[in-house]
Parts: sequence; C-alpha cells; structure tokens
Amino acid sequence: MRDVGIIGIGQVPISEHWDLCLRDLGALAALRALEDAGTDRADAIFVGNMLAGELSGQENLATLIADSAGFLPIEALRIEAACAAGGAAVRAAYTAVASGAHDFVLAIGVEKMTDHLTDGITSALATAADADYEAGHGVSFVALNALLMRRYMHEYGSTHEDFAAFSINSHENAVHNPNAMYRMPITAEDYATSTVVSDPITILDSAAICDGAAALLLCPMDQAAAFPRQTIEIAASTVATDTLGLAERPDPLHWGAIDVSSHHAYEQAGLAGPADIDLYEAHDAFTIVSALSLEAAGFARRGEGVTLAREGRIAPDGDVPMSTLGGLKGRGHPIGASGVYQVLEVVQQLRGEAGPTQVKNAKVGMAQSVGGSGSVAVTHILKN
Amino acid sequence: MRDVGIIGIGQVPISEHWDLCLRDLGALAALRALEDAGTDRADAIFVGNMLAGELSGQENLATLIADSAGFLPIEALRIEAACAAGGAAVRAAYTAVASGAHDFVLAIGVEKMTDHLTDGITSALATAADADYEAGHGVSFVALNALLMRRYMHEYGSTHEDFAAFSINSHENAVHNPNAMYRMPITAEDYATSTVVSDPITILDSAAICDGAAALLLCPMDQAAAFPRQTIEIAASTVATDTLGLAERPDPLHWGAIDVSSHHAYEQAGLAGPADIDLYEAHDAFTIVSALSLEAAGFARRGEGVTLAREGRIAPDGDVPMSTLGGLKGRGHPIGASGVYQVLEVVQQLRGEAGPTQVKNAKVGMAQSVGGSGSVAVTHILKN
Repeated sequence: MRDVGIIGIGQVPISEHWDLCLRDLGALAALRALEDAGTDRADAIFVGNMLAGELSGQENLATLIADSAGFLPIEALRIEAACAAGGAAVRAAYTAVASGAHDFVLAIGVEKMTDHLTDGITSALATAADADYEAGHGVSFVALNALLMRRYMHEYGSTHEDFAAFSINSHENAVHNPNAMYRMPITAEDYATSTVVSDPITILDSAAICDGAAALLLCPMDQAAAFPRQTIEIAASTVATDTLGLAERPDPLHWGAIDVSSHHAYEQAGLAGPADIDLYEAHDAFTIVSALSLEAAGFARRGEGVTLAREGRIAPDGDVPMSTLGGLKGRGHPIGASGVYQVLEVVQQLRGEAGPTQVKNAKVGMAQSVGGSGSVAVTHILKN
Repeated sequence: MRDVGIIGIGQVPISEHWDLCLRDLGALAALRALEDAGTDRADAIFVGNMLAGELSGQENLATLIADSAGFLPIEALRIEAACAAGGAAVRAAYTAVASGAHDFVLAIGVEKMTDHLTDGITSALATAADADYEAGHGVSFVALNALLMRRYMHEYGSTHEDFAAFSINSHENAVHNPNAMYRMPITAEDYATSTVVSDPITILDSAAICDGAAALLLCPMDQAAAFPRQTIEIAASTVATDTLGLAERPDPLHWGAIDVSSHHAYEQAGLAGPADIDLYEAHDAFTIVSALSLEAAGFARRGEGVTLAREGRIAPDGDVPMSTLGGLKGRGHPIGASGVYQVLEVVQQLRGEAGPTQVKNAKVGMAQSVGGSGSVAVTHILKN
C-alpha cells in the first residue's frame, strides 16, 4: 500500500443553506479543498451522504457533484454507512490512493437537512436504525440513544448532570470556529434546564439538524511535497461493525465497532494505544455517544467516560482533547458530512491552524465517525 | 496494485421474494459465494444497493448484511451510483484487494423492489435522474429513456422494430438460465404488439421490477490458486461520469461515460479495443441503452447498434455476444444488484459453465453497469 497524505481541505460553514442546493454545497467544499492545495487536479471523488434519497429525492449524488464542480468524466461514487458516511468517504478515498488506482482523490461529505424540518426528517434519520426491528415499531433514532443513556445512568449510577461537560466543552470550542453553527457558550444551568427531546436526552445533549459540506484532497505521500500546505499523513484507516439493532447486543453499553476499529487503528498507526493520541474527534451526536466512545476506544474505563469530561480532561488543554472545534454538538452535524469535517479539523489541529482552541504540540489526532447506534465505526489516525 | 481475481460466485434466483428480507437476500448470496470458493473467510464486504432507503426505510444496509451473514465485526460499507451500484460495489471490492487493505473481499449487490409495486416505485427510480431539473418536473426514468429512443429513431431513421432483436436475444438466452426471471422466449410479433409504457418504449423494451442478490469473492491473484474453482482475473476496473441531466449534454445520443470507461478499460486490460472482447454484458435496462452502449463502447458506429442486433451478431454464437444469460431484460434487473449479476455471468462464461448459451472459447468478457441515463458507467474486463 502507498502511504497517503492530505494536502488540501475545504469546507462550507455549517448553517441553514436554503440558497445552496446539494450539488453546489458539495462542489463548493471540493473546490475550496483544491484551492487550499493549490491545484485543480482531482482524479476521482468519493461522496459521503446519507439522506439525499429520502430528503431530496436524489440518488446518484456523486455524479451530480462531479458535474457541478467541473470534474467530469472522472470516477465519482457515493459511499454510505448512515451517520458514518463521511468517514466512509475518507476511507474510500484513502483506499483508492493507497491502491494506486488514482493519485489525487477528493473525499467529500455533504448533507442538506434544513429544507425538511417539518416533513419526515425523523423518519429519514431512523433509516440508520434497523427498519424491521426498531424503526418499524416507532422507535426514533434519538429514542434509541435515550434508552442507552438511561441504561448507562442505571448501570453506573451516574446522573444526567454528569454528561453536561461534554456539551459545555463542545459549545465552548465552537465559539472560536468560524465554520461552526452554534458559536455560543452554554452554562451548566442552560444544560440542566434544556428542553427534553426523548427522556433523558435534551436539546443540549443532541447535535442539531443542519446543512454542510466538507472536502479533503488526498494524494500519495511521495507526491505531496510539491504542494504548498503542510502534508498531514493518514497513519491509519479502519472500519468495524456491530449489530444494527441494539437489542441484539449482549452488552449495549460496550460499543464493539468502536473498540475494534480504534484498536486496529492504533496498531496500524504504530501506536501503543490511546495514550499516544493528542486529540480525539469523537462522534458526539449525543452526549451518551461521547461517553461510550471514550470507553470503547480505551481512553476511559467502563462507566468513567463521563468522569473525563467532568474533570476537564477533554478540554483543548486536557490530556484527551475532544470536539476541539465544536464537535458534532457545537460545530453542527450534517449527517453524511460530519465524518469529513472531523478529519478536516484534525488536519487543522495538526497544521497548528486551529486558533484559540489549538491543542499544544499536537502530533497525532484521531477522528471517528459512527453510523447507527454504534453499528459501524470508521476511524482515521493522522500524523503531522 | 495487486492483481485481483474472482474465486467464488453466489446468487439468488431473480424473482418476487416476498419471503426474504433485504438482509437475508444479501447474506444468502454472500454465503453462496463463500461456499462456491470453498472458504468461510471474508475480510470486508461492499454492498451495492440503490433503493433500500426509499423502498424499505433502510440505510446502513452493509452493516445489516454483515450481521445477517455472520461476518461481524468486519468492514462493511454501501456503495451507490444509482443503477450502477452493483458495478460500483465490485469496483470498491477490487480497489480494497488491489490496495492490500484486505485479502478476501465480497462484492454484494442486493435490491428488493416487489413489495412496493403500487406505492412509489416510479418516484424511487426517478431519484437516479436529476431531482431538480428532471424528476422534479415529473419526468420518470422510463420517460427519459423514451425521449432518447425517439431521438435515436429520428436521427438515424430507424424504427421501433429495429430494436426487437435486443429483447428477443435476451429472452432467448434467459430460457437457459435457472436464475433468470423470464425464462420464456418472445417472438417479433410479441415485441411489435407489446403494451406501450412510455412511447416508444414498450414492456418488451424494458427490464422489469424484481428482487435479487448476487455476490463475488475477490482475492489477490497470488493467493487464488489455493481455492478449488478456476480463478477469473479482473483485468480492468474503471468508472467514468457524464452529466446527470440529459438536457445538459451537447449530444445525448453519445454516452460519454460509457465511451471513457470502456476505452480506459481496454487500455488497462492491455486490449487493442472492443474486437478483443469475446462477450459484452451491457446494461440493457432498455433496448435503447443496448444500442447506445454498443456504439459508445466502440462495437458499432453511431446509429448502427441496432444493426448488430438485427444481423444476429449479439447471439451467443455471434461476434459480439450480449446478455448471454438473459441480461437485465431477461434475467431481471434488481437495480443495485444487476452490476454484480453481470460480472458473475461473465465469470460463468469464462469458466465455461454457462450451459446452452456458452460462448465458445470465451477468454475475455466485459461487464458494464450504468447509472442514470448514462451518467455513470462502471466497466470490468475479466480474463480466464
């Protein structure tokens, strides 16, 4: 396999983009990544997207973005793994470059959700769960995560308040990210009094519905020196899976896909374990996911994910910095695009361009994109 | 890049599978491919599917199939390129093996359409077209192809009858394929009197709605000799794109994606051109697509695709055998699965196991999966 690096990044600020259609959101991010890399060359694109079929009546999206960006007739395919679609697109781009099939490949994540706030978005998101055994019975995606959060509190004796620090940290960091959706800090009181969505999950436990697109330009490491920006190497790229239905798992509080994907990634990157990671962009779609991610990836013992947050260790100056540019909660979670934003933000950190929330001496960063309620995890470890 | 071969094939007969759900259809084909290869090892799966989100409320399908087949926690991702999703899954599996990321990889195509014959399948299929500029205005997918067929007849002075031989050949060959949906021959009179769907396209110009799943097990050529079945090498794997909207193309009768993808494939496989291909499994979703494919891929001059069919040259004993086991028209066209069935049938031909429609001395076969109205083409050339 060829070693692969990231030489360009591009993003659209996360917002409600009622004036931009799907194809243009994706193309805009792609062209910005090329501009950042100082080139106009893209040999192939892989597009991460989950909901265009349900919400916009549009499959075949990769071709459409290739057209909008002026890339025809290059290879263009869509990759889908529910909420992990963005990470999966990075994975596909990585594999294409590593294989030698292509030299310059864009991983693009794009999602457009806010045109549909009142018609069917909950049903659309529930397609990430098991249609026959979960969604078909009326369980929404947030309800599944609420069941998990309740179970966590029951098993470990933790309280809803224990999760506050995840949300507060994400919002605190998002303040300094010009591409984030929620650039406002929140207090412990805001968190405690937030409206319940699905008990015990409140609005401030949940990443919001939004529109966004991000892109990365990958190329072989041995061709990267010719480009102006510092190359960030992809030291590991892994995917692992678990049952889609929560009820099928012997232990729903252990997210096996994250465990396997993370530990394969440590090995692939030549790391001893999570202690070698300088920042961790986890899939904080809900605060419970942050806790379970920290535990499954080996940063915390079972039941102690919330402790790391409460003790301030997930802040940019802590020993396990998380959501350093706002994460899914603060920056926003355009479903199939989030995984690309996560890798992009690790690149910003490893370039030393993360601004006020820069992690000091960041050398190794991990981005992890999760689909379903822990049913698929895509992990990338980057090095500068 | 590592050389890649196919060591196992598995399929579910195409039919109306009201007793099998999506996950089990996919898993069944996967397990049959492993059985054919005499192994139980799969390191990753790539699933081609277009419509599960729209028709079954199910994204995240690859994880679900990995679970149903007993493969957890391996890598499992879905690949989508509208009707070319099956070919795209083969492409992704090929790249994963070629890169060295995995050794034993399943390409799986699966689609379940017949539960939804009366509610929304036309809308679901229209998501392969441009949602903003085509489908949004009420043009169905068959209507787009009808416009193309009418234009072809106008430009080249051909008649509807000129397309009959494509459909007759597909049905003739499907008779001998135990996995085909329509195992009955049709006559020129049947074709001439067939019910119009979208003028000039009739039922007998169109591949039918159906359920199906097929799978291939790929591994590096240098590990293939350990397995019992004859290894078929993937000599080329290419993807090319064109505009999604037909109206955007300067010449809608020239399918550029097929042209580029085919000619890249000839080059990659070390062939002089189409004359070196012993059989061509084209994407015969409509008879007009067969004609345009033959022309864009270089088997026929502009306007002469229909001539090849009329002269009997596309029969198994002709010089350009097509749809040798029924093609999309006769075998059936379960959208995201068709591309895998096509490659599988080329494997059957190159193994010499195609039965009464065996192409004599078949050494090199081409399978081509097309998404949208020619907007993306995925081409594989196989050698025995």
